[in-house]
Amino acid sequence: MELIRDETGAQRLIGYVLDVGQGDGCARCRLDTDERHLNRQGILHGGIAATLLDNAMGATGSLSVDPSGRHPFTTLALTVNYLSPGRLGRIEATGRITGGGRTTLFIEGELRHEDGALIATATGVFRKSRQEP
Amino acid sequence: MELIRDETGAQRLIGYVLDVGQGDGCARCRLDTDERHLNRQGILHGGIAATLLDNAMGATGSLSVDPSGRHPFTTLALTVNYLSPGRLGRIEATGRITGGGRTTLFIEGELRHEDGALIATATGVFRKSRQEP
Amino acid sequence: MELIRDETGAQRLIGYVLDVGQGDGCARCRLDTDERHLNRQGILHGGIAATLLDNAMGATGSLSVDPSGRHPFTTLALTVNYLSPGRLGRIEATGRITGGGRTTLFIEGELRHEDGALIATATGVFRKSRQEP
Amino acid sequence: MELIRDETGAQRLIGYVLDVGQGDGCARCRLDTDERHLNRQGILHGGIAATLLDNAMGATGSLSVDPSGRHPFTTLALTVNYLSPGRLGRIEATGRITGGGRTTLFIEGELRHEDGALIATATGVFRKSRQEP
Repeated sequence: MELIRDETGAQRLIGYVLDVGQGDGCARCRLDTDERHLNRQGILHGGIAATLLDNAMGATGSLSVDPSGRHPFTTLALTVNYLSPGRLGRIEATGRITGGGRTTLFIEGELRHEDGALIATATGVFRKSRQEP
Repeated sequence: MELIRDETGAQRLIGYVLDVGQGDGCARCRLDTDERHLNRQGILHGGIAATLLDNAMGATGSLSVDPSGRHPFTTLALTVNYLSPGRLGRIEATGRITGGGRTTLFIEGELRHEDGALIATATGVFRKSRQEP
Repeated sequence: MELIRDETGAQRLIGYVLDVGQGDGCARCRLDTDERHLNRQGILHGGIAATLLDNAMGATGSLSVDPSGRHPFTTLALTVNYLSPGRLGRIEATGRITGGGRTTLFIEGELRHEDGALIATATGVFRKSRQEP
Repeated sequence: MELIRDETGAQRLIGYVLDVGQGDGCARCRLDTDERHLNRQGILHGGIAATLLDNAMGATGSLSVDPSGRHPFTTLALTVNYLSPGRLGRIEATGRITGGGRTTLFIEGELRHEDGALIATATGVFRKSRQEP
């Protein structure tokens, strides 16, 4: 299982793990949430949810290039729907490619609590960067 | 000028300041970015951008209730368009109400670098929480 | 099979059929496309795609109220991703509820050509109207 | 004033006029709504609103290529927020470029009733087609 930890500043700051080794072309971002990830209503901050989704979806794009999951993709547009409050515990965002071509990919994502609750869904447009990883 | 600092876990973690005191009904989130806010391409992480936008937009909803800017709003849907790479420096997200009624508000946001560059725009649907702040 | 035809002005104008009788809680909009539904590139107009998706998704909301599929729902926000060009032939949009509560529903949609090609996906936020159908 | 009428099947079907001659880089789509454009609640169908917005926004992209407003652009993603019910009368969708580069443009749109009411706003990602118009 290929886990990427502490690779970028944002990843170290927020503390999630990126899993690009499940072999199904879908990257995951996992986070054990604590008080640092909550908003003023005491539930998961929508921005943290968006961060995990964006990262899992972009890395899913990377997996379409090579299994390292590291080729950089740029997010052009991201839409997040917030379905239910994210409570404390382990949460996981998963990406899945729905379409696209050589450089532009359409990728969807979902963010679930370990108890199975669907916290948020997302769709986005991502572009493969020319820049090497 | 009413600045809200360190109010929530997510705010302390990421380090932005929420400004609800400009008197124009528009809340701002300001962040002095450093290495902790960057992605693997060395530019502002899309999730951090979404966090600032979501927070400024939600607090703009709060300002429609009372000038404390603290009444909780729930994000139903958020769409972010990433227009240009966010470079290191001070960045500011600003919300603006475009429509809605008593409980559901449509709010747009923009995220700019202090040099004026437009990094991202956003639109979202927010709902006033019944819960007291 | 419960098919709704020619019910509204827009439906008569564009010519699609609304199917609320599949028994799986998912409404469909079907259209046999012809030259009237194309844009200047000779492919399905993005607005026609959005019309079918919006209508199938809203009617899917209606099916959560009663099996008539007619209780009015208002679209608050709709995001459409255009995955591939829509060619002439029969196309079908299908809605599916992903979450929500008593009055606000999150509904996704997909639009496929009869040959199986995925033309567009959509997500949206819908609100149950108090108004009787 | 450069008005494009009856150019495509969808335009003839729905009956809007495309105005690419205002000289400000912003294309408009105008429609005099009647019963054919309404949904089952007797207000403007969300799909017709999306059609006008998509078309005005795409043509605004075209105006960035040359003043004919005819160079084809493909919609990658479109998000529409429905702010208020569209009533009968003349409505106009206007596009405005917010960012982008040589081939991908970020374009926003707004749809207003002639009485000034803001019916819907939109944001989208558009790509310049290689195909000649």
